[in-house]
Amino acid sequence: MIAEPLTCQPALVSMRDLDVRTVEALIHRAEEFKHGTELELTEPVYAANLFFENSTRTHTSFEIAERRLGLSVVDFNPQASSVSKGETLYDTCLTLAAVGVRLLVIRHSQDAYYQELLHQPALPVALINAGDGSGEHPSQSLLDMMTISETFGGFAGLKVAIVGDLNHSRVARSNMEVLQKLGAQVYFSGPEAWYDNQFDQFGQYLPIDELVEQVDVMMMLRVQHERHNDDSTFDQAAYHQQYGLTLARAARMKPEAIIMHPGPINRGVELASDLVESPRSKFVEQMRNGVFIRMAMIESVLRGNRLGGLA
Amino acid sequence: MIAEPLTCQPALVSMRDLDVRTVEALIHRAEEFKHGTELELTEPVYAANLFFENSTRTHTSFEIAERRLGLSVVDFNPQASSVSKGETLYDTCLTLAAVGVRLLVIRHSQDAYYQELLHQPALPVALINAGDGSGEHPSQSLLDMMTISETFGGFAGLKVAIVGDLNHSRVARSNMEVLQKLGAQVYFSGPEAWYDNQFDQFGQYLPIDELVEQVDVMMMLRVQHERHNDDSTFDQAAYHQQYGLTLARAARMKPEAIIMHPGPINRGVELASDLVESPRSKFVEQMRNGVFIRMAMIESVLRGNRLGGLA
Amino acid sequence: MIAEPLTCQPALVSMRDLDVRTVEALIHRAEEFKHGTELELTEPVYAANLFFENSTRTHTSFEIAERRLGLSVVDFNPQASSVSKGETLYDTCLTLAAVGVRLLVIRHSQDAYYQELLHQPALPVALINAGDGSGEHPSQSLLDMMTISETFGGFAGLKVAIVGDLNHSRVARSNMEVLQKLGAQVYFSGPEAWYDNQFDQFGQYLPIDELVEQVDVMMMLRVQHERHNDDSTFDQAAYHQQYGLTLARAARMKPEAIIMHPGPINRGVELASDLVESPRSKFVEQMRNGVFIRMAMIESVLRGNRLGGLA
Repeated sequence: MIAEPLTCQPALVSMRDLDVRTVEALIHRAEEFKHGTELELTEPVYAANLFFENSTRTHTSFEIAERRLGLSVVDFNPQASSVSKGETLYDTCLTLAAVGVRLLVIRHSQDAYYQELLHQPALPVALINAGDGSGEHPSQSLLDMMTISETFGGFAGLKVAIVGDLNHSRVARSNMEVLQKLGAQVYFSGPEAWYDNQFDQFGQYLPIDELVEQVDVMMMLRVQHERHNDDSTFDQAAYHQQYGLTLARAARMKPEAIIMHPGPINRGVELASDLVESPRSKFVEQMRNGVFIRMAMIESVLRGNRLGGLA
Repeated sequence: MIAEPLTCQPALVSMRDLDVRTVEALIHRAEEFKHGTELELTEPVYAANLFFENSTRTHTSFEIAERRLGLSVVDFNPQASSVSKGETLYDTCLTLAAVGVRLLVIRHSQDAYYQELLHQPALPVALINAGDGSGEHPSQSLLDMMTISETFGGFAGLKVAIVGDLNHSRVARSNMEVLQKLGAQVYFSGPEAWYDNQFDQFGQYLPIDELVEQVDVMMMLRVQHERHNDDSTFDQAAYHQQYGLTLARAARMKPEAIIMHPGPINRGVELASDLVESPRSKFVEQMRNGVFIRMAMIESVLRGNRLGGLA
Repeated sequence: MIAEPLTCQPALVSMRDLDVRTVEALIHRAEEFKHGTELELTEPVYAANLFFENSTRTHTSFEIAERRLGLSVVDFNPQASSVSKGETLYDTCLTLAAVGVRLLVIRHSQDAYYQELLHQPALPVALINAGDGSGEHPSQSLLDMMTISETFGGFAGLKVAIVGDLNHSRVARSNMEVLQKLGAQVYFSGPEAWYDNQFDQFGQYLPIDELVEQVDVMMMLRVQHERHNDDSTFDQAAYHQQYGLTLARAARMKPEAIIMHPGPINRGVELASDLVESPRSKFVEQMRNGVFIRMAMIESVLRGNRLGGLA
């Protein structure tokens, strides 16, 4: 029997809804799951993962998190769903709730798609946002915070650089906000065209060569080729030399400093291919932690919805 | 241990194969499942859902019904199957039976596709038709009957209107036949171009405004945009005013009368969007009952095939 | 508790890596599974099946083999994966390993795709090749050997004809090599344009009418329409008459001789449609055995990787 944690959420759709205490509680709970804590179900709980955009790591990670918690995962293929007959997302969710699905994990190309799903009495489901358009990606933010917390034991005074495609990254905006709230010092780098002056409130923009020696965390963002229209003119080698984490730059990092990347990686663009599995790189650990933070998120929304099924 | 029910079927492909007693027995069994009856399996039973046409509610509902019965559901994606290498449906089913699948639930665009699968000694599987072309959709018919039975306690003397795209609906034809057999009085409405004179044997055609005050059930059919060629000229607002269940018409319904819809709904076309979650609407209850009626159907064909696995 | 068998493999990607003793041990183990032996898991083991090429029988067979062993099968749809964002196969596998997947079963259009996945310390997974380009298809080879072994009790002196699309068949090359190693006598037939002189080292090429009366096994290969460019000019009836197993030819086979086909069958091309379910045909038995041989393969690589989970 587990005492009800302090992190119960009716839905988990945006990092903005989470105060520092909740973020820390979720990380703490994820660490418990990582060390073997198991959840007890009193009856079958069905989950459906609705991924309207492509994903390997997020989709699989949620599925394994669900299964580790003992949930039953129902197959949902958007291409083969009634969405292709023009059904609204709300009506699709209504259907899934009616047949007994109690947790919906949704990735969708529309910003804030979840607004029409919240506070609907007819939708007795727990909801997690697995990425909305160019909006947010809270499970990625939380696994990043968990990985930093695990490595450094906390955030106070930590220097974190977020580097690259800041404007197109679902996770950059969430991370700069939450890092500031948690007490870290944030820096930015990457092409100035991909930088927005509103980021100034969260940290300082600097060329990568001025950053690389001082920060504790180099958080490299993926170049989102699929979101750029002018992809054909993009010069990967030039980007790597000017904005990327080259082997030479990595060699100048502080001894304990780490490299992070949300994946999928464009090897040789954001960072040198050989760095992916270097001892500095937390890439694999981020993915590993992703399962446990998602377990904590799922438990939180299931408890917050009080639909039963959890001991 | 459950006494063998009276509803065993070697396959469940058409409502025409089911007499009144069998329909009632399936509804009764579904109500038992709804009230918590569980099935005992003596060994793993594998099921595969072959949906060659898009579906959310029917596909998910069958999958949850299978899992609630304890079956193991095997992933089948038609786009990634050997059907795309020109394999016949029969040979695909032969393959699935050979590797150990014992229940096949199939939706296919070809009318009566199941004919080539029945009475094949080499195919030791239980078969359920989840929709064939413009043929039938027995699980939808049965869940409709279950919902009416649950609401009114029976069918004798009940007045049921089936309204809309009668010619293109897989479920309209089945429902008019079975409703007549069960003792209800059937009425029709909708565009005359979508009405066939052969329906006269089952009930009377009337304009919706002459029906709406007298009937106990307004069964609204989905406008099957994907089956109409002249879609571009279809005027949704005009349809709604002339043939749809507007708010004004709904206000004229008898106090206890209900609204049904098989989904997915074209909101504002067949019925006013606000009616979907009105107290009159059985839309969500129909979907909920769908899981239990499918459990009853699955049990029936598994027992009828005597392939073992059920206590 | 099962004594560790002699067939442990870190990965199972090519028949060339398997000596005669290992092939025999895998067949022996598969027969034990066929007779009801069960594996005990000490913790959940997650498997993912990555099928980048279409398949019904191999995909479903691996999935059922995994489930019969008690593994948890994680959904993976290549069309919806990050591979479509340009992620390398290696990075996709790294992701799946990081989130906890311990067995990868992969089919891919690239020959020897698995080379970049072997001997990678960062990839702590068991790997099975379910077909690589025009390379190999070891689980098909092994189920063929199991079916022959079961029927005739051994291979010594057995005459086996491999007939048809020898050059485009993933399984023909593996089978001629392993059959020779196991002591069988190999013959070939089919269009000369689809025969390569390097096959001479494994057996003799003969017209089908000179073979059909002497051999114990007629192993018919599928005409791989999807791999031929000149498909439109291919005359199915002419192929059947000249190279296929017609009813007349089948009637001339030895009393105990059998017909094999890897599926999917082009009925009326490689063999007469009526032969598919004839008593001579081992088509269904091959598919049935496929589940058990795959169970043996999976156990072998899981034990060979010593990642735990098996009692």
